[in-house]
Amino acid sequence: MLTIEKQLVTLNQDIAGQEIGIPVYRLFDDRQKMRKKVYVQSAVHAAEMQGSAVIYRLIEHLKTLNLAAEFVLVPNCNPFGRTQRAGEYLQGRFDATTGNNWNRFYHYDRQDAVEFVRGLTDEDFEQLNKGDETSVIKRFKSHLLTQLQNKIDRDWGVNTAQFLNTTLQEMASKADLVLDLHTGPSSTRHIYAPHNLAEQAKAFNIENIISIPTSFAGALDEASFTPWWDLAELLLERGVTFNYRVDAYTVELGSQENISLDAAEQDALGILNYLSEAGFLEGFEGVPLTPSVVTELKNYKTLFSKHAGMVEYLAKPGEKVSKGQVIARVLNSLEFDSENAITEVLAPATGTIILHYPSAAVQVGTQLFKIAISEK
Amino acid sequence: MLTIEKQLVTLNQDIAGQEIGIPVYRLFDDRQKMRKKVYVQSAVHAAEMQGSAVIYRLIEHLKTLNLAAEFVLVPNCNPFGRTQRAGEYLQGRFDATTGNNWNRFYHYDRQDAVEFVRGLTDEDFEQLNKGDETSVIKRFKSHLLTQLQNKIDRDWGVNTAQFLNTTLQEMASKADLVLDLHTGPSSTRHIYAPHNLAEQAKAFNIENIISIPTSFAGALDEASFTPWWDLAELLLERGVTFNYRVDAYTVELGSQENISLDAAEQDALGILNYLSEAGFLEGFEGVPLTPSVVTELKNYKTLFSKHAGMVEYLAKPGEKVSKGQVIARVLNSLEFDSENAITEVLAPATGTIILHYPSAAVQVGTQLFKIAISEK
Amino acid sequence: MLTIEKQLVTLNQDIAGQEIGIPVYRLFDDRQKMRKKVYVQSAVHAAEMQGSAVIYRLIEHLKTLNLAAEFVLVPNCNPFGRTQRAGEYLQGRFDATTGNNWNRFYHYDRQDAVEFVRGLTDEDFEQLNKGDETSVIKRFKSHLLTQLQNKIDRDWGVNTAQFLNTTLQEMASKADLVLDLHTGPSSTRHIYAPHNLAEQAKAFNIENIISIPTSFAGALDEASFTPWWDLAELLLERGVTFNYRVDAYTVELGSQENISLDAAEQDALGILNYLSEAGFLEGFEGVPLTPSVVTELKNYKTLFSKHAGMVEYLAKPGEKVSKGQVIARVLNSLEFDSENAITEVLAPATGTIILHYPSAAVQVGTQLFKIAISEK
Amino acid sequence: MLTIEKQLVTLNQDIAGQEIGIPVYRLFDDRQKMRKKVYVQSAVHAAEMQGSAVIYRLIEHLKTLNLAAEFVLVPNCNPFGRTQRAGEYLQGRFDATTGNNWNRFYHYDRQDAVEFVRGLTDEDFEQLNKGDETSVIKRFKSHLLTQLQNKIDRDWGVNTAQFLNTTLQEMASKADLVLDLHTGPSSTRHIYAPHNLAEQAKAFNIENIISIPTSFAGALDEASFTPWWDLAELLLERGVTFNYRVDAYTVELGSQENISLDAAEQDALGILNYLSEAGFLEGFEGVPLTPSVVTELKNYKTLFSKHAGMVEYLAKPGEKVSKGQVIARVLNSLEFDSENAITEVLAPATGTIILHYPSAAVQVGTQLFKIAISEK
Repeated sequence: MLTIEKQLVTLNQDIAGQEIGIPVYRLFDDRQKMRKKVYVQSAVHAAEMQGSAVIYRLIEHLKTLNLAAEFVLVPNCNPFGRTQRAGEYLQGRFDATTGNNWNRFYHYDRQDAVEFVRGLTDEDFEQLNKGDETSVIKRFKSHLLTQLQNKIDRDWGVNTAQFLNTTLQEMASKADLVLDLHTGPSSTRHIYAPHNLAEQAKAFNIENIISIPTSFAGALDEASFTPWWDLAELLLERGVTFNYRVDAYTVELGSQENISLDAAEQDALGILNYLSEAGFLEGFEGVPLTPSVVTELKNYKTLFSKHAGMVEYLAKPGEKVSKGQVIARVLNSLEFDSENAITEVLAPATGTIILHYPSAAVQVGTQLFKIAISEK
Repeated sequence: MLTIEKQLVTLNQDIAGQEIGIPVYRLFDDRQKMRKKVYVQSAVHAAEMQGSAVIYRLIEHLKTLNLAAEFVLVPNCNPFGRTQRAGEYLQGRFDATTGNNWNRFYHYDRQDAVEFVRGLTDEDFEQLNKGDETSVIKRFKSHLLTQLQNKIDRDWGVNTAQFLNTTLQEMASKADLVLDLHTGPSSTRHIYAPHNLAEQAKAFNIENIISIPTSFAGALDEASFTPWWDLAELLLERGVTFNYRVDAYTVELGSQENISLDAAEQDALGILNYLSEAGFLEGFEGVPLTPSVVTELKNYKTLFSKHAGMVEYLAKPGEKVSKGQVIARVLNSLEFDSENAITEVLAPATGTIILHYPSAAVQVGTQLFKIAISEK
Repeated sequence: MLTIEKQLVTLNQDIAGQEIGIPVYRLFDDRQKMRKKVYVQSAVHAAEMQGSAVIYRLIEHLKTLNLAAEFVLVPNCNPFGRTQRAGEYLQGRFDATTGNNWNRFYHYDRQDAVEFVRGLTDEDFEQLNKGDETSVIKRFKSHLLTQLQNKIDRDWGVNTAQFLNTTLQEMASKADLVLDLHTGPSSTRHIYAPHNLAEQAKAFNIENIISIPTSFAGALDEASFTPWWDLAELLLERGVTFNYRVDAYTVELGSQENISLDAAEQDALGILNYLSEAGFLEGFEGVPLTPSVVTELKNYKTLFSKHAGMVEYLAKPGEKVSKGQVIARVLNSLEFDSENAITEVLAPATGTIILHYPSAAVQVGTQLFKIAISEK
Repeated sequence: MLTIEKQLVTLNQDIAGQEIGIPVYRLFDDRQKMRKKVYVQSAVHAAEMQGSAVIYRLIEHLKTLNLAAEFVLVPNCNPFGRTQRAGEYLQGRFDATTGNNWNRFYHYDRQDAVEFVRGLTDEDFEQLNKGDETSVIKRFKSHLLTQLQNKIDRDWGVNTAQFLNTTLQEMASKADLVLDLHTGPSSTRHIYAPHNLAEQAKAFNIENIISIPTSFAGALDEASFTPWWDLAELLLERGVTFNYRVDAYTVELGSQENISLDAAEQDALGILNYLSEAGFLEGFEGVPLTPSVVTELKNYKTLFSKHAGMVEYLAKPGEKVSKGQVIARVLNSLEFDSENAITEVLAPATGTIILHYPSAAVQVGTQLFKIAISEK
């Protein structure tokens, strides 16, 4: 039978000392001892709220399905960013004091795997050679969790983003699958998948897939899967093929500052479809898939503005554009009496517009567009 | 022949001492000595940029028409708000230091008219009784301009918003028609018209007209027309019917953080249609008008949120809603396992949704919707 | 025997739905039925934290004294401003969404007194004429509280600042004495006293006293005492001299963004001295008073900057300056090679510097200094 | 004879298209062809204004001395941060849109040196072996400048912080000595010196010296000297001892949001003393030095807050503290009736308080103190 547990994990306090926490939902079927675990969080960038609506929809569906895993779901997982207003919007992308991106202070250290492998015994290798990875998986998870717990320097403390990220990662580190739900600014749906899962990711039913290397650049998905690639690599050096991986994705569900419960239903169905195909649940009937395009990260490029001014975005998220096509116009109000009132912005390559900046007001260096370039 | 003059009026400086100004365009036909003047400004709330695109379109059109007035056009008229970034958006609505709304510090003082009338001579009254208002109009304009110039206390100074507003008002005070171009947050087009012009305002071809009293509440339109109503009232007490008025409108051209040159063309055509009908230009062929609805200000009401949470706006700007209709849903992520996950927001009256808040993230007291209530 | 009750009154929620409240401390001697009430709040401007340290000290002292009144103390009374970070500081002065000053939306309506007096019976006047004000006091307090409770429009809601202010005012409206603890930016201690209490205010042992009219300009002190002046005035028109007043002060305890427990002890002793002299407590031995200067509000003036640049404040808070004295220098980095590198700011009048702006970075219109002008 | 040239280098524009630049002062003695160059910039973190006052003082002094180098001085070098207000303060530390620290996007790539060395000819090595470094120095500077100019991707652009940093670095890359003038939040004077110059740095007459490795962590000083260490290392691998280094320091001149022209005079004298000792000018009479303490970077540690609340900083910048000493108190207004109202913060090590956070309002993870630990 399905059990739903809710816990409020306190992280933030305001200056009056009042505690502010995050709701953590735990869903499991208590008839079976769960072996697998799925961790889903949303809104670590607090204005990227659609993922929280998706978690709501997921909980509704999970109640009606057979769970083959324990699910830990954490909507609005950033109690710091969530209270930070900037004009009419929510500036929940970075610590308003330090500029630290709330999504870049997860823990990763290659030494974690190095030390762990150094500690393996002959007996461990024997077991691995027999193809039994169970004990090593369990102990490496435990080892990684210990590193996280040690991360917080008891004497000197850690910064706010590290504190947030480490706490979330402690929950995520127990999972076999990690989904970090985000949105872009003005954006079409897209997903970051580690290269080995780029094909499998099509089950999410999201048109644009960005295939990323299995290395660490700060985010939770990378922090989740990279240690296991390190482990496999180090074991291979010792002659052992190690197959288990933690799988992790960053899923970008449209635009920030916005929620839609209808879109959330579609998003949830795609996620359930993946979960079903990956064996984390049973009884889901599937969804008809739309074709997806996989773009390698090196071909997913940012176009920065070379002008300040007021921008009209002509190319919309999801639209295909050709090299040289006018994709935006910059209006300069000091030149309304001249030929230079409008500067055209051209697509530097052929590809798909994934997202654009959410405001017409840009400065030099503003991230105007991100484009998934089509390879020839 | 048409002359276009451009001037950069310095208002702001940054802390390095560098001056930042506003472009002022002056268009006139130099074959005739102009009697009438039109003043148009945009983006005093800096993120409300669409009006600047409209001024660009207006200049294009004015070049091809016969001007029966001098036009002064000031796009991006707020050099303070225009540089104030808050996350990915532009917080140009209020002084980031003081919270002073950039649109609430225009000068108005009933004593300006009282003193002026006190200074009128028997000769003046004789002329007025003959129906000749010319001299009084000219001298009252001059009187009002002097008050503005005296406003800035030479010893003690004025606050930043007063300084900005007074400088703009000095230009506006010379005009017979004043247009202050704004936008809402997420909004349909609407216009604030003084009650006497509510019908005439239909020439702007904007569906929703808010009819406001001819009194002062802080904005430029009110600051422009109210002194003339005071003057007329005081002269009436002295037995003289005074007919001249400065006309002024606040025009709300859709949503903030956005420009569209196509929409700007439509907006410009409506404004040109009004200008043509009001006799400020010739040779404009007109536009087909869509029907407009006039709502009195007392029936234009704000619905404030009673909850914090993530809001899905179901009713869109421009949409007609009935009392009791569900117009929004508030999602509460602490209640995803209960019946209380979603709270419905009901329309408190039948009417038209004019605008809603631009973000899903709201707190208690957030201005969720503004609704033009339909009278029975 | 002394009883201390603590209650957490919920006001704010974040977008995840989590409730954020204000601690309300209630101290009373349960041996006697209290007739008098004192209300003290701090940090409605959230960065003005020193008042909260003072409330901590007050509670320590009150435990050891004989209370002749019930004390309601509300530190950090603004759960909205308290979480709003802006760089390394706390922007708790105004609603980050609307610019609404958290200290300007208290309720006041002259009609409240007008209606109340209209409802008085012959019997009431008889009692008043006998000099018995008890019943009228009690009923007018109740009448004012009802107005506050009605203030929140059940259908349309109120804005966030109104919601906060009304909630606080409901507590304050029951008191005979209201203290609203603030600080200035970079400031010396000063106090706003209604003109009738300007002399009595010296008991607070604060050097600078600003004497204000008994009328309403938005703040809690004015909202607290003005209705009672209205009532007295209306009764006087009916031939009755009414003596009771609610007394209220805004107390400015130094500089924002800062707390000092030692200074808080001094601040607390001054407040206790006033409370003792005004009969709200017994057993306090008093403090030696330093001489105070009373300045009328019309002589308490703001000097706004006429330049942008980097300012060195030469005159410090509390310092006496003479007209024409150089009180600041503005450095302009575009003129380092010329005579114009430094612009001197002169005192426009002789008086005492009460506060200056907390940053060297100013723009045109920045509030540089507030000066209590010495009358000749 | 001394020549002072001033140039306004445009970097930023606002959305109306108006250009905003940085003043660049160039001082040189035109009787001699300069061989050496000194580059000084200030306020790349815009609220750290004291360095700009110091540049003003430096220009005054340089006019009266014999220059043995060309001086390029850039006060208020950040035209983006300089306009960014956040409440009453200046948030000029990071890009308000992205959170990018304005001081972390300088260019460094070890490949720059690798490629350069790869391109050296036998003739070059012959010359180096003779001890003549002139040509290699000149060509490596030119090589580095070219890398910077190539940095800006012509098709895709760069982000705002990269654009700012690269532009500044192009000027700095021509210099033999680079000084980047900063301040701390609430801070005592200190200086970051590369380890090889830790002793020489004492000539700046600044009490606290932080000795840093000659490697790159994002700042201008590191970006300036590291390529030359790379070059020397690579040449050593080829058997050549290369002696020339660019020297660079980050100088922290007290507290942000503040300027003092008197303190600036002291700061300038220390800098002149260094310049004189290092041979960049003649005729300076020197200053009496106060003793300095050198702390290695690994012993310069941040104490992060483990609590949210209102903090009283007991230990002041410049103060020596012992391990276990109470250096701050955190006040919790939810506990005013209990023993837990105050939490003491203890020094985790013996050393000197270099700086503390500038506000009493802290959250979990706020950087409370930075402490230079005394080695035993």
